[in-house]
Amino acid sequence: MQNRKVVLTGDRPTGPLHLGHYVGSLANRVLLQDTYLQYVMLADVQALTDNFDDPEKVRQQVLEVALDYLAVGIDPQKSIIFIQSMIPEIAELTIFYLNLVTVNRLKRNPTVKTEIAQKGFGESLTAGFLMYPVSQAADITIVKAQLVPVGEDQLPMIEQTNEITRKFNTLYQADVFPEVSALIPKVARLVGTDGKAKMSKSLGNAIYLSDDADTVVKKVMAMYTDPNHIKISDPGKVEGNPVFMFLDAFDPDIAKVQELKDHYARGGLGDVVLKKYLAQVLNTFLEPIRVRRRDFARDKGEVMRIVRAGTMATREIAGKTMQEVKEAMKIAYW
Amino acid sequence: MQNRKVVLTGDRPTGPLHLGHYVGSLANRVLLQDTYLQYVMLADVQALTDNFDDPEKVRQQVLEVALDYLAVGIDPQKSIIFIQSMIPEIAELTIFYLNLVTVNRLKRNPTVKTEIAQKGFGESLTAGFLMYPVSQAADITIVKAQLVPVGEDQLPMIEQTNEITRKFNTLYQADVFPEVSALIPKVARLVGTDGKAKMSKSLGNAIYLSDDADTVVKKVMAMYTDPNHIKISDPGKVEGNPVFMFLDAFDPDIAKVQELKDHYARGGLGDVVLKKYLAQVLNTFLEPIRVRRRDFARDKGEVMRIVRAGTMATREIAGKTMQEVKEAMKIAYW
Repeated sequence: MQNRKVVLTGDRPTGPLHLGHYVGSLANRVLLQDTYLQYVMLADVQALTDNFDDPEKVRQQVLEVALDYLAVGIDPQKSIIFIQSMIPEIAELTIFYLNLVTVNRLKRNPTVKTEIAQKGFGESLTAGFLMYPVSQAADITIVKAQLVPVGEDQLPMIEQTNEITRKFNTLYQADVFPEVSALIPKVARLVGTDGKAKMSKSLGNAIYLSDDADTVVKKVMAMYTDPNHIKISDPGKVEGNPVFMFLDAFDPDIAKVQELKDHYARGGLGDVVLKKYLAQVLNTFLEPIRVRRRDFARDKGEVMRIVRAGTMATREIAGKTMQEVKEAMKIAYW
Repeated sequence: MQNRKVVLTGDRPTGPLHLGHYVGSLANRVLLQDTYLQYVMLADVQALTDNFDDPEKVRQQVLEVALDYLAVGIDPQKSIIFIQSMIPEIAELTIFYLNLVTVNRLKRNPTVKTEIAQKGFGESLTAGFLMYPVSQAADITIVKAQLVPVGEDQLPMIEQTNEITRKFNTLYQADVFPEVSALIPKVARLVGTDGKAKMSKSLGNAIYLSDDADTVVKKVMAMYTDPNHIKISDPGKVEGNPVFMFLDAFDPDIAKVQELKDHYARGGLGDVVLKKYLAQVLNTFLEPIRVRRRDFARDKGEVMRIVRAGTMATREIAGKTMQEVKEAMKIAYW
């Protein structure tokens, strides 16, 4: 158990998780937990950096996202689910790390730069938002994670983390922190139902893990396909067609999917028939997740007990890390 | 006891305390502790913002400054002495506050702006240094201080603190934090032995509370006086003469000081005689402080026990404040 490599994953609890999360990270976590010591963080402090005016939303989503985790098969016997804000050691480590990063370096962080532009902060850019890569470095290193599964766009965060811990280790002549590596999943991203590059809550193009069967049917029937596929007999475009991307991701029957692709490409396969099939595939995939979700949702107290136990386990490790940090800095007073 | 107003004071433990500290703040604290619930913070986290490359120095000075406190009469039965880095709740509160302040607001903070220019940070300005007013706001408010004794130059820090807590109270529709007021002492500043505007360790013009009698004599004999007072019979300048400023601050015999001033002004009073008198006044003032310092220094374990007890008492209050903060933000999970 102690020899397993440590992996940290997590989500900002700002909304329910969807199929994009499943493909991009959750499926991977269900596999990782068998090989690694996996921490799964409910990143409420990070969510607050741009939701500080509505913390209640974040709070509610903490429970919902925890339910999503348990529903997809993240197993509290194997993975440690914890709430970020309940680990004061992360805040302590962040404060020390802030001395090891320049303001200019933070402003040049490509991920932060892009997000600042996207969110149009300008003059209203908060200190909390600018600092969040430092906070992330503390999240990762408080449990001494060696691996963090991230998308390509998050690579600068891993680099920032290693910069900070290398500086820490060098400055305090200690070997407290290991290097962190990114673990880039094969399928990084699922398109939205509208065919847009990324499934996301804010784009309104998501199918949620908690959607019921009827909702899934409705969302699938309204999906974007090939706009030039007007008559059933017309040849349709398979490449870039979100319906086929979803089938590739969720239909285990690869031969059947290939057959449908060929049929669609030569003409004669209507969108309605195709979508009905996809809806059925998705509902088959989602049904066991829904069942587990319902089971756990019946006893929300039990869900909180699971999260609390994970948080306590994380605090134990976090406390040890902070003691090492303070010893390295020679400010461990007692 | 519970009805007493709360006052927060403290020092960055980067060097031993000197007569300037005594006049500017310590004397005041010895008085304040009878009327107020006084917290005295050993601000090691703040000291680290520009001493992060030498934390051991900070660590050593924590004990020395604690000794200075006890030596001047800060009474652990009346005041609560604590170590900043041992209160993780301050870090937690700082992280939440960072969301309530813009980067531009921090850059415009007059105190920070001046210090950034003085220290010549430029490109190397760390995030930790830029943020330190936010950390200070957390120091002050974690114990819900209502009064903070500060020099005029620190008034922007008090304003920054009130801005943050007003925003907190408004945003989360809560009444967690009281307004903080500055308590500006009458004698804010003691000149250095070289006549420069401020006594300070870095200027090498300080007489320390821990200096022995011979060192005090040596430092006083080398003091700057009126450079035009060449012959004993020459009339000397009293105004702006550091020797008389020191006498004003430390000689309880006001009539005697007036007599010396008159004599010096009309001529006939030599600098050597005058300085010998001042050295005697200072040593008379410092002797009981030295005795207490020696007594406490004999059992450094006891000093640490005092500081530890104060830190534990502070953590109790800090924990309560953070629970209120999380309840106001509706993220108190348990």
